[in-house]
Amino acid sequence: VSDDAVRATNDPALTSWVPVPSGSDFPIQNLPFGAVARGHENAHLCVAIGDDALDLSVVAGSGLLDGVCADARAVFAQPNLNALLERGRSVWRSTRVRLSGLLRHGDERLRDAGIAEAALVRRARERFVLPLDVRDYVDFYSSLEHATNLGKILRPGGEALLPNWRYIPIGYHGRTSTIVASGTDVRRPSGQLKFGDEPPAFGPSRSLDFELELAFITGDGPAAGGRIAPNDAHRSIFGLALLNDWSARDIQAWEYQPLGPFLGKSFATTLGSWIVTLDALEPYRVAGPPQDPPPLAYLATRGAHAYDIALAVSLRSEAMVRANVREHTITQTNFRGMYWSMAQQLAHAASNGARVRAGDLYGSGTISGSGPGSWGSMIEITWRGARPLALPDGTPRAFLADGDEVVARGHTAANGLPRVGFGECRGTIVAASTP
Amino acid sequence: VSDDAVRATNDPALTSWVPVPSGSDFPIQNLPFGAVARGHENAHLCVAIGDDALDLSVVAGSGLLDGVCADARAVFAQPNLNALLERGRSVWRSTRVRLSGLLRHGDERLRDAGIAEAALVRRARERFVLPLDVRDYVDFYSSLEHATNLGKILRPGGEALLPNWRYIPIGYHGRTSTIVASGTDVRRPSGQLKFGDEPPAFGPSRSLDFELELAFITGDGPAAGGRIAPNDAHRSIFGLALLNDWSARDIQAWEYQPLGPFLGKSFATTLGSWIVTLDALEPYRVAGPPQDPPPLAYLATRGAHAYDIALAVSLRSEAMVRANVREHTITQTNFRGMYWSMAQQLAHAASNGARVRAGDLYGSGTISGSGPGSWGSMIEITWRGARPLALPDGTPRAFLADGDEVVARGHTAANGLPRVGFGECRGTIVAASTP
Repeated sequence: VSDDAVRATNDPALTSWVPVPSGSDFPIQNLPFGAVARGHENAHLCVAIGDDALDLSVVAGSGLLDGVCADARAVFAQPNLNALLERGRSVWRSTRVRLSGLLRHGDERLRDAGIAEAALVRRARERFVLPLDVRDYVDFYSSLEHATNLGKILRPGGEALLPNWRYIPIGYHGRTSTIVASGTDVRRPSGQLKFGDEPPAFGPSRSLDFELELAFITGDGPAAGGRIAPNDAHRSIFGLALLNDWSARDIQAWEYQPLGPFLGKSFATTLGSWIVTLDALEPYRVAGPPQDPPPLAYLATRGAHAYDIALAVSLRSEAMVRANVREHTITQTNFRGMYWSMAQQLAHAASNGARVRAGDLYGSGTISGSGPGSWGSMIEITWRGARPLALPDGTPRAFLADGDEVVARGHTAANGLPRVGFGECRGTIVAASTP
Repeated sequence: VSDDAVRATNDPALTSWVPVPSGSDFPIQNLPFGAVARGHENAHLCVAIGDDALDLSVVAGSGLLDGVCADARAVFAQPNLNALLERGRSVWRSTRVRLSGLLRHGDERLRDAGIAEAALVRRARERFVLPLDVRDYVDFYSSLEHATNLGKILRPGGEALLPNWRYIPIGYHGRTSTIVASGTDVRRPSGQLKFGDEPPAFGPSRSLDFELELAFITGDGPAAGGRIAPNDAHRSIFGLALLNDWSARDIQAWEYQPLGPFLGKSFATTLGSWIVTLDALEPYRVAGPPQDPPPLAYLATRGAHAYDIALAVSLRSEAMVRANVREHTITQTNFRGMYWSMAQQLAHAASNGARVRAGDLYGSGTISGSGPGSWGSMIEITWRGARPLALPDGTPRAFLADGDEVVARGHTAANGLPRVGFGECRGTIVAASTP
């Protein structure tokens, strides 16, 4: 598929025969991937368009994806994206170009095949599941503002930023078994808590937090031992989704020395429902912040590697839900301010020869801007509880309470270009299980 | 299958019609699981017996494993153990009891089926591959002696043991994509190295180390949110294998604050070829060391949860291989001295509601005894290079050199009971790739 054909899918003038309400995250320029539950069947892959989702299993079954790769019917009959991710970038691009064509105003192939009704499902009536089998999950720590805030909060009096931070896109491996789909309830974890001079005790976390992130999903990287140049990283990145890296700050504080976070993070991580392809985000690529000192050669980039994506998190307590009070926006920020780019993160992760695989997930780390209204976690917003949030229901929040629903959203915001959005990354806190 | 039938597989009086040389790791009382490469075919599951491996795909194909579970032919036609791991403990036990019966002196079912020759392959002529698709990989840090040594080396003047260590089986998640089979070469990783006041530079690690470990492999744990009582942990543990958690100490030292080890570990982890079942190890279960303070209730155990497994690591330089000099034993220790038991490690990992899955791998952490001859890593043995090892070829070793071959071995050592062994966990260091 030609670069011109790929670029044409981003043409602001394109419209679809599927209705797309004004302000939708999902115009024809987007076509993000997800997976829709199908009762007792396996889940089906789909792309979002307007208020609908296009079932790719139905489309492929009618032969309309034939030729995007040798085994298209098998790839799009899978319950997750892993087979497509393994096929690599040229197949990802062919697929998106084909789907854009099938959904374009005036195209009648779905109707001619008699599948337009069967293939389009109303999203509001469906349940969506995790669209990939996550292989390795890495979470980075790439916002200068977030790392500085946490340094000030956790090491008052010391240097806010550790000496390695401006040289290394700091990251660690997280647990994959507890990565869940948007909408899944999150049970408050229990763990060892240590206060003052008392010995630790086991109980429900009292400092449950969210972390606003974006994450990228990869195909297979080079053969074992092959590095990835940051300027080539986009070839291995399929797309991005919202991510909420739920965190129990009290469990984390007591356990994390010297090997890093473990049970303070591993209880749940919520992935947003929609994976927006890197091709759909191409018109929104911008320069990132300056880096000082300049990165070492294996992390050096040319050109623009940040993305202009506006992000927001809202919170709604159980009382607000009952009283039908609208959700309350607690932070608004932008992905473009991240110090380390995704290209640098992936180059770093592969720099020691570690194999990158189809289905790997790489979280950005908490995305925080420069002021309290743009910070991406409760520990920052409330300064570890010192300045609790006041919710519209009159209750204060130092950290999350049972029944709180947290929703992250994101979309591109460039003037004159279509809004390409990520949908939601949603989760509600449920009470800890009894001991 | 009855407990009596399981116990009967450990009877020291049992013998096999397959010859078992004296001193073999693999008498009929063992029957550890592995996977043998079959050229262009998928790998086949197998168990080791004497100098042979019994190909379970051939055995199951002839119907001789019918009934151990509903879909035995499909389960044993898989290229890895994951399907068997998903079936759970009663199927694991039925399988082992059946195999013990088929291999017992006087049993003629394999011969009657005409498959004895096709099913038994000489191990020395075969290549063995990774026998499981690892889902989550956790590495613990459970040797008091190792944690104390590293504390003294890395934080001289401070408390050797951090305050959380005697309360928490400290652990972290590692990378699964670079877990490799015994015998796979290990390429020296490159990464950021920082010496003194100089800025960091990217280059090949100068402090490449091994870590002697055992690791356990699980089936599915309880449904999401369910905890695992340490006294019930054995129900979720399939078996144990040797593990070498290769470590680049210089990369690790510069990167690990505040989120723990990442690229200093993620370049390679070698799993031993043979997974010895928990049932085969049952006669070698012993009491572990006393724990002070007593563990919190969720980690409290009754009875004996350690295992009496003698371990050794040998090193052979390229010059020694060329000169045909025997490998040089550099450490000998025993698994029974580990402070935190596998039961406690698994209970801890699941204590926050994290899901345990079939195919999870949990490393013990470096196994070190009380003196230099029993320490499980180069950084301890040479005290970070201060006391280099002298090899038989006349060269010193502070850390591993290119061409060095490291082999870990382990076996039970109880008086009067059969030797149940783990075979080898082998890897040779190859030079870093050019920048």
